[in-house]
Amino acid sequence: FIKESMEGANEADVAALLDELDMQEALYVLRVLDDELAADILIELDEDDQFKIITSMEHTELAALIDHMDSDDAVDILNQLGVNEREDVISHLQEKEKSAHILDLLRYDEDSAGGLMAKEFIKANQNWTVVQTINEIRRQAENVEKIYSIYVVDNKERLLGRVSLKRIILSAADTKIADIFEDDQISVPTHMRQEEVAEIMRKYDLESIPVVNVKNKLVGRITIDDILDVIREQSEEDIQAMTGLSDDVEESDSIFRIAKARLPWLLIGVVGGLMGAGIIDFFEDGLQKVIALASFIPLVAATGGNVGIQSSSLVVQTLAAKSVFSDTPWQRFIKGFLIALVNGVVLGGFVLAVVVFVYKHEFIFGVTIGLAMFCVVLLASFMGTVTPILLNRFGVNPAIASGPFITTANDLLGLAVYFGVAMLLLNL
Amino acid sequence: FIKESMEGANEADVAALLDELDMQEALYVLRVLDDELAADILIELDEDDQFKIITSMEHTELAALIDHMDSDDAVDILNQLGVNEREDVISHLQEKEKSAHILDLLRYDEDSAGGLMAKEFIKANQNWTVVQTINEIRRQAENVEKIYSIYVVDNKERLLGRVSLKRIILSAADTKIADIFEDDQISVPTHMRQEEVAEIMRKYDLESIPVVNVKNKLVGRITIDDILDVIREQSEEDIQAMTGLSDDVEESDSIFRIAKARLPWLLIGVVGGLMGAGIIDFFEDGLQKVIALASFIPLVAATGGNVGIQSSSLVVQTLAAKSVFSDTPWQRFIKGFLIALVNGVVLGGFVLAVVVFVYKHEFIFGVTIGLAMFCVVLLASFMGTVTPILLNRFGVNPAIASGPFITTANDLLGLAVYFGVAMLLLNL
Ligand SMILES: [Mg+2]
Ligand SMILES: [Mg+2]
Ligand SMILES: [Mg+2]
Ligand SMILES: [Mg+2]
Ligand SMILES: [Mg+2]
Ligand SMILES: [Mg+2]
Ligand SMILES: [Mg+2]
Ligand SMILES: [Mg+2]
Ligand SMILES: [Mg+2]
Ligand SMILES: [Mg+2]
Ligand SMILES: [Mg+2]
Ligand SMILES: [Mg+2]
Ligand SMILES: [Mg+2]
Repeated sequence: FIKESMEGANEADVAALLDELDMQEALYVLRVLDDELAADILIELDEDDQFKIITSMEHTELAALIDHMDSDDAVDILNQLGVNEREDVISHLQEKEKSAHILDLLRYDEDSAGGLMAKEFIKANQNWTVVQTINEIRRQAENVEKIYSIYVVDNKERLLGRVSLKRIILSAADTKIADIFEDDQISVPTHMRQEEVAEIMRKYDLESIPVVNVKNKLVGRITIDDILDVIREQSEEDIQAMTGLSDDVEESDSIFRIAKARLPWLLIGVVGGLMGAGIIDFFEDGLQKVIALASFIPLVAATGGNVGIQSSSLVVQTLAAKSVFSDTPWQRFIKGFLIALVNGVVLGGFVLAVVVFVYKHEFIFGVTIGLAMFCVVLLASFMGTVTPILLNRFGVNPAIASGPFITTANDLLGLAVYFGVAMLLLNL
Repeated sequence: FIKESMEGANEADVAALLDELDMQEALYVLRVLDDELAADILIELDEDDQFKIITSMEHTELAALIDHMDSDDAVDILNQLGVNEREDVISHLQEKEKSAHILDLLRYDEDSAGGLMAKEFIKANQNWTVVQTINEIRRQAENVEKIYSIYVVDNKERLLGRVSLKRIILSAADTKIADIFEDDQISVPTHMRQEEVAEIMRKYDLESIPVVNVKNKLVGRITIDDILDVIREQSEEDIQAMTGLSDDVEESDSIFRIAKARLPWLLIGVVGGLMGAGIIDFFEDGLQKVIALASFIPLVAATGGNVGIQSSSLVVQTLAAKSVFSDTPWQRFIKGFLIALVNGVVLGGFVLAVVVFVYKHEFIFGVTIGLAMFCVVLLASFMGTVTPILLNRFGVNPAIASGPFITTANDLLGLAVYFGVAMLLLNL
């Protein structure tokens, strides 16, 4: 019954369904289905579910599924196993060409173009005719599900360009590929970061892109469906970093798993808050004299946090886009400084006015709060600009800078500046 | 010279270059180039630059460019003009078929599947043979740049399925389309939201998807390159909402434009902070008695903000994914409450310990701070769960709930709870 009802369905739908079952049930369903469909479903599962399933399968059983996968998906699965298990599974594969492909792909970093590419694609030698190319398509028809462009290479396998299927269909059988291919094909090197590949494919509207090694030899192809998964993963990671989750969680995960993922950053925030208590404690004498200073602590802290997040996210956005025309760090500082100056004057002035005219405090007290606001805006903006640039330089996801980290740091700096200004202006 | 150096380059690169020029220069470059290339470049420009350029062009000049565009891109350009100008431009178009396509597409909401689709695609009647289909491809070769799948329809233009170019190439000339097409093609209705279309294409690994009207008649096709732009736009909007930018700005925009985009949310934060000052003012007598209460104000405010952002972003993520299996609002509350309970106990206990053993305050004072923390975590989590659900129900982008809005609201609630708890426990 399961077999019948599942075989008509799309693998992505079945995968979504299996995600809701427990591991034993999912494993049972996969075993009932035929290997090809089971392989498609396994690829579509969440990585954590995949891991549970493949580690509880026999190596021969897993090898039978991998025989039905594209080389890129096979490598994604095998990368989750230890080195010894991985080799044992590969030794059970039926097709020797596939094992060779997989061993080649395993060499690349998972997050690089090499880690995204597949070995299944059609290439044509420039000296071939259209008929020869069609024969190659026929030979590979089973392996290459989606062709997109046919890549054209010379005798040394170096990438020369591409020819579309449309062109093949519309050309006479004895036309030479050399006469009809287009030589403007954009390619990427194996070591390019996956986010950069995604940006290139988006910019140039490509649905597939050839990957070349240092000698310009064509070694693989990346398709847009895998790029969409990269983009989604990246934006989830950014949001995670910005909201202070230490681990990739979904709403469907268990209560303890979600609570655990949230705790580390909350604790860092709490430690920051306790350090803030220390700072305020230090100024207790002054605070005792002018108790009203306490009222504006949340104002100063909140503004610092908001400014910091805004500045950092603009920088993060630019770092991600990596425009050729982007400013130097120095220009960025100047610009950030000027923007902060404008907002600092507006907000500081506004606060001064409200404190003096609405809350009826003394003028010098209003100036204190307004000036503290102004300084906090400048400082928070500076921190928000510097932090992501530094993080990025050290290879950390700069989106973290728009999260609880910057807010906590700005709270502390803001408090110190606030009480510092107050001490000076109010002679405490 | 400009003409020569540009004509070899890719339109996306030229567009990036023009983005840096001022409008007069950009317009000059576009006029020097031939219409086809100029049309490609115009499509790739930022929307604000596009607007400036098209509004300073003659209608006949613009029509000449639009003659070279795909119908979807033409509509994106025309949608930026007023109704009368739009009709005047359309009346200057050379191809009558294109005007008809454009008039049809203008009817759909820009953010729906109808607003994304193009009229350029290949469809084959199921009764055609392979040769007839190839003739149709030849006839449309100029108009349809990328074919992907050929959609198969019946005599009433209803969508039946698709056949790949690969299949066409590998089939005998007199094969009937009805015998080789696949009937599992996923399609979307014209009114589907663009984000939903993007999610379907990602889930099912499609590089193009047919769009049908209520009678299942094939009316257009959406391609993956436009979907990548939708995804990018959506994630930029989310980040904007989360970081409190009121307008779509880039780092390359002018200082005043960036400052202006940031001010509204900063002002809301400041007004919130000033209201917070009012709350603290209200408790000034108690604060005077136990001055140490002031020290822990930033701790309470920061924790509320962090918890609120974490809870809301998880809900936002789930709302975006729209899983069939997602929990009911009620289950979500219970779950969010339990997670908050775990984190509230851990953080409250930790703070109690630090306040009593490190800062050497009295035990009852430690309990006050710890209990206030616990309440704030619960409350902020509740707000963080409810706000995005409510916003979403009223058609507002729920990502706003992870921004300065929730932080400000939580700051105020947190202060009220904090001082409330302190009044009760410390008998102030
Ligand atoms: Mg799961
Ligand atoms: Mg990865
Ligand atoms: Mg991989
Ligand atoms: Mg594009
Ligand atoms: Mg495009
Ligand atoms: Mg793939
Ligand atoms: Mg805050
Ligand atoms: Mg611009
Ligand atoms: Mg739009
Ligand atoms: Mg449109
Ligand atoms: Mg996919
Ligand atoms: Mg896939
Ligand atoms: Mg398009």
